[in-house]
Amino acid sequence: MNKTPTIAVAGATGAVGREMLEILEQRKFPHGTIKALASPRSAGQQLPYRGGTLTVEPLTHESLRGVDIALFSAGSSISKEFAPAAGKAGCVIVDNSSAFRMSDGVPLTIPEVNPESIRNLHASASLPNVIANPNCSTIILLMALTPIRRAFGVERTIVSTYQAASGAGAKGMDELEAQTRDDLAGKVVRPGIETGGVFHEPYAFNLFSHNTAVDPVTGLNVEESKVILETRKIWNDPSAALSATCIRVPVRRAHAESVNVTLKTPATTAQVREVLSKFPGVRVVDDRAANLFPTPLKASGKDDVLVGRIRPDASRLPASATAADYDQPAIAFDLFICGDQLRKGAALNAVQIAEMLL
Amino acid sequence: MNKTPTIAVAGATGAVGREMLEILEQRKFPHGTIKALASPRSAGQQLPYRGGTLTVEPLTHESLRGVDIALFSAGSSISKEFAPAAGKAGCVIVDNSSAFRMSDGVPLTIPEVNPESIRNLHASASLPNVIANPNCSTIILLMALTPIRRAFGVERTIVSTYQAASGAGAKGMDELEAQTRDDLAGKVVRPGIETGGVFHEPYAFNLFSHNTAVDPVTGLNVEESKVILETRKIWNDPSAALSATCIRVPVRRAHAESVNVTLKTPATTAQVREVLSKFPGVRVVDDRAANLFPTPLKASGKDDVLVGRIRPDASRLPASATAADYDQPAIAFDLFICGDQLRKGAALNAVQIAEMLL
Repeated sequence: MNKTPTIAVAGATGAVGREMLEILEQRKFPHGTIKALASPRSAGQQLPYRGGTLTVEPLTHESLRGVDIALFSAGSSISKEFAPAAGKAGCVIVDNSSAFRMSDGVPLTIPEVNPESIRNLHASASLPNVIANPNCSTIILLMALTPIRRAFGVERTIVSTYQAASGAGAKGMDELEAQTRDDLAGKVVRPGIETGGVFHEPYAFNLFSHNTAVDPVTGLNVEESKVILETRKIWNDPSAALSATCIRVPVRRAHAESVNVTLKTPATTAQVREVLSKFPGVRVVDDRAANLFPTPLKASGKDDVLVGRIRPDASRLPASATAADYDQPAIAFDLFICGDQLRKGAALNAVQIAEMLL
Repeated sequence: MNKTPTIAVAGATGAVGREMLEILEQRKFPHGTIKALASPRSAGQQLPYRGGTLTVEPLTHESLRGVDIALFSAGSSISKEFAPAAGKAGCVIVDNSSAFRMSDGVPLTIPEVNPESIRNLHASASLPNVIANPNCSTIILLMALTPIRRAFGVERTIVSTYQAASGAGAKGMDELEAQTRDDLAGKVVRPGIETGGVFHEPYAFNLFSHNTAVDPVTGLNVEESKVILETRKIWNDPSAALSATCIRVPVRRAHAESVNVTLKTPATTAQVREVLSKFPGVRVVDDRAANLFPTPLKASGKDDVLVGRIRPDASRLPASATAADYDQPAIAFDLFICGDQLRKGAALNAVQIAEMLL
């Protein structure tokens, strides 16, 4: 790879695309030409970058010619239209959509978790040079679970999410704000989809099961299936046992997750805290005395995934457990984690993958 | 008990107290004299009731004389000051505080779940005639779990809550609204406690681990301990295995809970749905095709606890599970439930207990 590659951000005007540009700037990503690409109706828009501006160009096959690395975040159908051909032409695509995540031979990568996955970028003949960025909830979950898995093994995981509006893009965040303003002004809030919006339930001071479709057989929504199936692929463990319940909450841009994890080998709370503390990209926020733990606000705009409420699963201890029992190794733990959906859940992870290519 | 008892609502001006009056009115509770009692600084306030008004009187030992049933919701210290003496004088106290919930001989009652608990109101010599109303999260959880337990047994429960502001009273709800207005006006929101408010974290578009103290040994906060210990008492099962993670979310008055339950005997999804449908006080809201499930807004102002997302726990099925496997009996299920914190979580349950006394 060229040491100062030509790069492109496709979907540059979206919530994740803007975050990608901000992160490329913050991390001083070494590149030559940089292109901001988006739909034809956004063409001509000016985006701030490194003290100047980038003029948005329409995303076309032609616009990707000569690009070394393209970060895609313009939705699955756009990725399907442009990524395969560009990849065959030698451009490495880091794709934030779900289009190719489960495709055989396409790496699904969290740099801290499975960096080895990008070793063979030509494993898929039809999708060479395509790397998929995992789902936001999956990334945030596995940042916390992977150090625990490496040290003690993971037998089973049960996760309930508290997902931010940003997962549905800038439109989702705007809908939350607009509906909340309406509610506070005494207006009755209706589901956004009734007026061309995003969500199927009122969002102001409300929460609801994730807006993706629910499988009539399994009862899982698409978001939950992503968490389960992507984890199996990233961990290279086809039988990893997970249950997920994905809920959208009235928060702007950071996801929270309540995680119950059963280990293969018992560990003490101190040991779990230690392996988490040492993992790059994780910060332990776990102050019992001050009642200060991860929150979406603390995670917003930050790179680290915050982990706290680290404690043995009370359901696996005898009801008569004493203080001494809590110091013994436990076989299951509860955690509460928060991560910025737009950063580590999307744009930051994609830029980190691009950095690995250099 | 007198067929038209004299009743009192202690803490009548609070969020739960007002709801108690509304529910007594809606349910046409047959009473004689009714007294609205509160702190001296609220005395003289007029509260609407049955087309007229009640004048708030100061809560004193004297004010409880001649009262047959007193519904208390004025906080633990007030309950401790007034309830024992009134109970000894023959007044039946239904206490919404946590003061006596775990006291030996004091019934801890959800009418649909353990009505037998109020049979002996004199089991406690020091607290005769005192009945405790369980914690809101406990009530809402057990409304969903009890029919499942009766039919199939419950081996283990893991619950993550999404709790509304109302659990901290009218002050908590006001803090959420005021901070949200400030945030939308572009102001930086600080934790409420810094300016005499309720919560230790900013609440606007944020969520946080429950505001009760965290035990330095167990890592559980008080709310989580309540859910675990109260469930054991209500089910009369001292070893019931539960884990709880209690989180406050920016919602006004209905709690949600994500529940993973392991059964003693396998059941099909249809069987679980059926026993839930038949349980009084539960309404199944589980429309996979339309993606319509319980939400706090749907539960707000309603008596029923809503249950949905009823599906086999994916972590207990083989990764290769087919559609046919999902029709087989499963040993664990995931559910998502919502209930009004002020109604079934507090005032309604208390009034239902009072109705059982008649």
